[in-house]
Amino acid sequence: VTITCCLPTPELAVAVAGLPGIEVVVWDGARVPPAGLADVSFLVAPYSPHAMTPQALAHLPRLAAVQLLSAGFDGWQGVLPPGVVLCNGRGIHGGSTAELAVCGLLMTWHHSAELLGQQQARLWLPIPGLTARGMSVVVIGAGDIGSALGRQLTSLGARPTLVGRSARDGVSGVADLPELAAGCDAVVAAVPLTEATRGLIDAALLRRMPDGGCVVNVARGPVVNTGDLVAELRAGRLRAVLDVVDPEPLPADHELWGLPGVILTPHVGGGAAGWTEQAGDLVRAQLVRFAAGESLANVVDL
Amino acid sequence: VTITCCLPTPELAVAVAGLPGIEVVVWDGARVPPAGLADVSFLVAPYSPHAMTPQALAHLPRLAAVQLLSAGFDGWQGVLPPGVVLCNGRGIHGGSTAELAVCGLLMTWHHSAELLGQQQARLWLPIPGLTARGMSVVVIGAGDIGSALGRQLTSLGARPTLVGRSARDGVSGVADLPELAAGCDAVVAAVPLTEATRGLIDAALLRRMPDGGCVVNVARGPVVNTGDLVAELRAGRLRAVLDVVDPEPLPADHELWGLPGVILTPHVGGGAAGWTEQAGDLVRAQLVRFAAGESLANVVDL
Repeated sequence: VTITCCLPTPELAVAVAGLPGIEVVVWDGARVPPAGLADVSFLVAPYSPHAMTPQALAHLPRLAAVQLLSAGFDGWQGVLPPGVVLCNGRGIHGGSTAELAVCGLLMTWHHSAELLGQQQARLWLPIPGLTARGMSVVVIGAGDIGSALGRQLTSLGARPTLVGRSARDGVSGVADLPELAAGCDAVVAAVPLTEATRGLIDAALLRRMPDGGCVVNVARGPVVNTGDLVAELRAGRLRAVLDVVDPEPLPADHELWGLPGVILTPHVGGGAAGWTEQAGDLVRAQLVRFAAGESLANVVDL
Repeated sequence: VTITCCLPTPELAVAVAGLPGIEVVVWDGARVPPAGLADVSFLVAPYSPHAMTPQALAHLPRLAAVQLLSAGFDGWQGVLPPGVVLCNGRGIHGGSTAELAVCGLLMTWHHSAELLGQQQARLWLPIPGLTARGMSVVVIGAGDIGSALGRQLTSLGARPTLVGRSARDGVSGVADLPELAAGCDAVVAAVPLTEATRGLIDAALLRRMPDGGCVVNVARGPVVNTGDLVAELRAGRLRAVLDVVDPEPLPADHELWGLPGVILTPHVGGGAAGWTEQAGDLVRAQLVRFAAGESLANVVDL
């Protein structure tokens, strides 16, 4: 039996070349639909968010599985026909996303933005840093990114607490979040955007954080209520490291760009060098499972 | 028997308060010498380098041990009378110094300086990052700082190689440095400044590093030959993260301030929040050993 899979780029097609019984169609959902889509049962969606709209699915009547290249799966909820399995890209970007959070926290604690400003002004003016040692960091999300972040923070002597949907061994439940926020130095969002996590970091939670606390978002912008965060930042009470924001891209006239204590990057936590190789490895392994009729990995519990 | 110790600050005197048989004199080597110095057998030198000159030792005829509050011991070689033991501050600053090196490497790989510039210009323009995963980092120095750095890099998925004076289990010897430099993504200096390490990172070693390699110095400025490094940076061939430089403080008209790919901080790797508590703990433990006639910890092999 031949299986037809649809891949978003020619590079990915190279990565799966040589697999027996696999036909490949390359389509990114944007260009004119090529021939062969009607046979596609396995779809790899393009990494770029919103590149493939739900309308594209109308071209794929035999679809059985969708593989994403991102950890997040927002935009795919309620979109797939019944019975179609959704798998996320767990593992492709986790390391680089977690290390971007670590980078932002270290930059905040070591006053890197201020010191870069002094460098530009050619000023030698030491500012004593804080150190990660002993810092209490609440990591919302206990998946690929959250777990990597926990390990990295531990190696720096910080004390991470992972928070998942429900409490389990080594992971606190989301119900503990208000109490955890009150006693921590930083809160990091590393969860998928779902209806349960939209606006999870809001005024009530932010208010519980101690003065000088740092909010890090490497998940999706809407996990944080932008207006609520802006109010705290405007007051100079909290600091923030934001790789994702709501709205995105952030308009040039948005207040967030210039608020004190904010490090803002344009959604670069994933997509680091080497990600396409890891994406290729994952897609290849998933296709082997799919062709053998085995369960897929990284199935999203929608 | 009462032991008289000389401490550089009243804060440290508080940290050792209550130890039986210990008399304390507070002197930083700069102010007018107080009474009681003639009885001092245990000296804690001030953290600030060059605060205490060798001339100060003339006031301490009964000196038996000198405790430093820094990991480095440059300036103390060839200065002490025979028989006087020198101990460094191993452990006081190691964590924060190592994490500053990690911070600088992550900032380099994730283009943080460029992205902060874009933030100031309110530009949303993603620059794909590199990731620490798989990066080969040569860490010159296998002491407190080097070991902490090795652990931190490993947790990020990087591949550190520690280099010590001679090869031993898990540590390469300095003779391997030229070969290691040729195959690495970054070289980090985390060694004391001695006659053996002065200028260790010179034109010959830098030339072996691959294009785009990063030189990190969290040790002492003269471990790197400034002129040789400037030549590579001016050519845009290498990048650098420098917390220490030669000369220091760096004059405002020095070329290093403005070279591309350079992150320059004003010697802030040590002295992070909490260091005085750790210094107090070390000094107290050393005084207990000294009063009991036991061997001191952290003895420097000059």
